[in-house]
Amino acid sequence: MAIIGCGPAGLSAAVNAKWRGKEVVMFGTKLCSPALHKAHEINNYLGLPAMAGDNLRKRFLEHAASMGITPEKQAVSAVYPMSGYFELQLRKENLQATTLILATGVAVARPLPGEETFIGKGISYCATCDGNFYRDKVVAVISEDAHGEEEALFLAGLAQKVYYLPLYDPVGSMPENVEIIRDKPAGFSGATRLEKLELKSGRVVEVDGCFVLKEQLPLTQIVPGLELADRHIKVDRHMATNIPGLFAAGDVAGRPYQLAKAVGEGQLAALSAVSYIDSQK
Amino acid sequence: MAIIGCGPAGLSAAVNAKWRGKEVVMFGTKLCSPALHKAHEINNYLGLPAMAGDNLRKRFLEHAASMGITPEKQAVSAVYPMSGYFELQLRKENLQATTLILATGVAVARPLPGEETFIGKGISYCATCDGNFYRDKVVAVISEDAHGEEEALFLAGLAQKVYYLPLYDPVGSMPENVEIIRDKPAGFSGATRLEKLELKSGRVVEVDGCFVLKEQLPLTQIVPGLELADRHIKVDRHMATNIPGLFAAGDVAGRPYQLAKAVGEGQLAALSAVSYIDSQK
Repeated sequence: MAIIGCGPAGLSAAVNAKWRGKEVVMFGTKLCSPALHKAHEINNYLGLPAMAGDNLRKRFLEHAASMGITPEKQAVSAVYPMSGYFELQLRKENLQATTLILATGVAVARPLPGEETFIGKGISYCATCDGNFYRDKVVAVISEDAHGEEEALFLAGLAQKVYYLPLYDPVGSMPENVEIIRDKPAGFSGATRLEKLELKSGRVVEVDGCFVLKEQLPLTQIVPGLELADRHIKVDRHMATNIPGLFAAGDVAGRPYQLAKAVGEGQLAALSAVSYIDSQK
Repeated sequence: MAIIGCGPAGLSAAVNAKWRGKEVVMFGTKLCSPALHKAHEINNYLGLPAMAGDNLRKRFLEHAASMGITPEKQAVSAVYPMSGYFELQLRKENLQATTLILATGVAVARPLPGEETFIGKGISYCATCDGNFYRDKVVAVISEDAHGEEEALFLAGLAQKVYYLPLYDPVGSMPENVEIIRDKPAGFSGATRLEKLELKSGRVVEVDGCFVLKEQLPLTQIVPGLELADRHIKVDRHMATNIPGLFAAGDVAGRPYQLAKAVGEGQLAALSAVSYIDSQK
């Protein structure tokens, strides 16, 4: 079994497949889950309350390591579904796998000037996760699609004022304390924490926090014929894609981008892949 | 938000809903998850390797308790989907909830032979609801816990004769027209209506009606109109059932019966229910 991605979904898949006695090879990036690495505090993963995201990330990797699973820091540049197996194109060699799980997460687009500086200091990527830190404060939401409106509405119920920057059209109706700004973000500034959102027009908006909601799916061109739905890999309730033997789990398989969902889907994908291997014998 | 069931799926739902600032009321049984309680060692819940099932169970309950969530040890005997809310029938009162998550797990006991055949034709799950149909008749009560004694006493005041089959110990004192039978039920038979309760010992008891009181009622009995698929609640990828505002998670929503899947689905159901509440405003 090959697994691409070593975030929560991929690691959960690996742990489950290994526990079922399958041979697992896993590919991933340096941090495995940049989103988890950056998360200030996570309270909604059952059994491990009030954990810093990075501690959770390390704990997950240790769990996998204790079962002999170590992610290879290597990119898979292409996947070819063959008759009865998958051919994975690596940097210097090819690898054959009976079954494959895609758990690559969703890539974040190129950061804005100042964006990385203020991550965890005013910049966040999930309103429903971090919104509670901005009760009665002033926040901005930058969104590439209409999904951001839900997050803006959620924040409007908590924050004193919400600036909403839609990078799309049209926008639905918003409560009184939401101001829609038709402009583009240019960058972020502040002393130790985020203080100002700078716009392309030259306007500067003073904020306590800013939620940057963007998405960009990798891998879609890497696996020919893979069916998508709304920019994510299309899966059924067993995490099966349209390609037999190919499964997906976690953020790449759809919203919400949440930890427990990813871990649960990783388990489901692994058990489906285990059944697939057994059916091929 | 009401949640029925306090196993991993229900607790994950509660923790997520609470973190999103919703008011949560949770109903459950004594152990919350008998399966987890019994599990010798669990190795495939990411982040908590090599845990005894019961330690994990306690840890989950502590996480919920730390957020102010304590399951009420009370059975919900029926749920009525009303216009814009759900009416939950408890033992002594009713409760209204905007949204409801079913996370009841799967009943360990399958229905007895003939049980499903005679539902509404002699088999009932609530003495106080249907007792009046058996005035001066002969009924049996099969109960998994001492709560059944209240129902037997109620029936003793109406029926001519009550056979009481306790599947537990000890049993309190009963009026003269209640005969306690120390045996186990084997099945039901009759022509068009229930006529006979068959026992494991071979004894056959002639009855007009039988009240089957289990910790877990058949789902369709609790929620009229709920759509099932292969004995589980039918859900979509967002854990929505066929009834608007009603969600399901964990074993009750389908196989595989696995911990991480249940926790992930609990989170999904909670986030869907939170969106539902917000959309109702």
